Amino acid sequence: MSLLFTDDDVVALDAAATVAAMRDALLAAHAGRLVAPPRASAPLGGGRLVLTAGHLTGDWYGFRSYDTFGHPESEQLVVLHDAVTGAVRAIAVGEELGSRRTGGLGGVAVDALARPDATTLGVIGSGRQAWTQLWAAAAVRPLREVTVHSRSAARREAFAARVRTELGVAARAVGTAAEAVADRDVVVLATTSTTPVLAAADLAPGTHVNVVGFKQADRHEFGTDLLDAAEVLVTDSPAQAAAYVPPMLAAVDPYAGRLRDLGAVLAGAVPGRTGADQISVFCSTGLAGTEVFLLDRLVRVAAPPHPVR
Amino acid sequence: MSLLFTDDDVVALDAAATVAAMRDALLAAHAGRLVAPPRASAPLGGGRLVLTAGHLTGDWYGFRSYDTFGHPESEQLVVLHDAVTGAVRAIAVGEELGSRRTGGLGGVAVDALARPDATTLGVIGSGRQAWTQLWAAAAVRPLREVTVHSRSAARREAFAARVRTELGVAARAVGTAAEAVADRDVVVLATTSTTPVLAAADLAPGTHVNVVGFKQADRHEFGTDLLDAAEVLVTDSPAQAAAYVPPMLAAVDPYAGRLRDLGAVLAGAVPGRTGADQISVFCSTGLAGTEVFLLDRLVRVAAPPHPVR
Repeated sequence: MSLLFTDDDVVALDAAATVAAMRDALLAAHAGRLVAPPRASAPLGGGRLVLTAGHLTGDWYGFRSYDTFGHPESEQLVVLHDAVTGAVRAIAVGEELGSRRTGGLGGVAVDALARPDATTLGVIGSGRQAWTQLWAAAAVRPLREVTVHSRSAARREAFAARVRTELGVAARAVGTAAEAVADRDVVVLATTSTTPVLAAADLAPGTHVNVVGFKQADRHEFGTDLLDAAEVLVTDSPAQAAAYVPPMLAAVDPYAGRLRDLGAVLAGAVPGRTGADQISVFCSTGLAGTEVFLLDRLVRVAAPPHPVR
Repeated sequence: MSLLFTDDDVVALDAAATVAAMRDALLAAHAGRLVAPPRASAPLGGGRLVLTAGHLTGDWYGFRSYDTFGHPESEQLVVLHDAVTGAVRAIAVGEELGSRRTGGLGGVAVDALARPDATTLGVIGSGRQAWTQLWAAAAVRPLREVTVHSRSAARREAFAARVRTELGVAARAVGTAAEAVADRDVVVLATTSTTPVLAAADLAPGTHVNVVGFKQADRHEFGTDLLDAAEVLVTDSPAQAAAYVPPMLAAVDPYAGRLRDLGAVLAGAVPGRTGADQISVFCSTGLAGTEVFLLDRLVRVAAPPHPVR
């Protein structure tokens, strides 16, 4: 029996469960149980179809597919196969699972790297990715105030209202990026900008930053000033960060040598934050196989939505 | 709205509709409208996940996924996206669509290459692929007798019984491959053998042969005697045949130079059979994108099976 999940079903995955699943995935990858090869793709004329696959040895294998056409209602697929029988156990169609996956990885990073007493968060960006980062961060720290900046005043006001309504946290929309990040314990950068929107000089000592948007060597929503300021520099997949074309900015010299693996930090194999005044930065890569990991978790927590066969 | 199809739903695709769809696909590929790149794959430890993708310009794009783990209940996926919106229009889970796709391509080959007056068919093999080849051939020629040979007497008898019951055609199980192909107008070779099971000397002049099983340079269910005997040598994708690792036997010297594209034959760009005594051979490759083509056709003919959302 296959189960088909849509975005409406994926909301059964709350932030705490999602963050817990992503922590388990990162630890499984660190332990070598989660096989997560680089992405494969097929050119289709005007766009590419891309496959990121994963295999949790003895348990499941599967993949996420997405494309680069840029169509208005583009939908991703995540497919979960049983590793013993090969049968399809579940399929998710839509954007919500992938978005929560990325949020969950960000939540793990905040939990591992932000100061234990962090309660304030500034976010630049007001889209789906900005939202799931905040949603997950609220599950790992008792947030008491959120500031948000994005180019559209209407969108940032709506985002702040959503924070108040859905998360029950005080929230203010502000007119500049500098105001959004000033004196914050945690900062989330989740824009579609290809040029820096954040100045490291605006950050208070001790801030943890999650970077979710463009971060490759040729286009990035932050500058090298942020990487220079970061005493703790972490990503969820150093191998994938280096395999990007061009590579992630944090995966090339002079930063590559001190880029740490979040899974290794979680496992205690390498240190995370060691002082309250350190700037820590998490560059989100999107470890392959984590979407399938989360779909497996969804199958376990959700009531069967659309049983077929 | 996405539609999820299982093997039980795919039976709505009858042989005539399947053959017609595959003819349209081959002509679209020949005309450059169907973009069908080589397969992409991701290594997962113990097996690979493989993606074959296609794009019918302006209409749809999508892919088939399968794996090489060899699990007992392994299921394939075929996914159809709308080329304008990017939304998922349909998903098929199982083996039936891929199997009918391969049968349909074989049916097109029989229709294009067998003698117009062909009425007898011999098949070596009694599995799923053997069945769909016969099923499709019966839609393009008025068969009056089928002979079948496979190693298991029980399985070949069951296959002959199924031919009588489901296709209403006289059928005999026979003890040797030579008996199965003797004096036949059409021969289907669909085994899992890696060494030759057919001797070209056993074929009557004018026979058309569909080869469906192993046909690479290092393992093949037929020998070079068959390719030497073939005056007309055709495949559904010369590019994919050459891209196999190792390549298809018919795509290397001295055969590559005279290997014809079935789409080009259908379009009248290159000749097919030109004499009643010629041996013609179709080496089935499985043109990429044809599974998605067939799923698109299924969406058009089937009643919505499992509407979701």
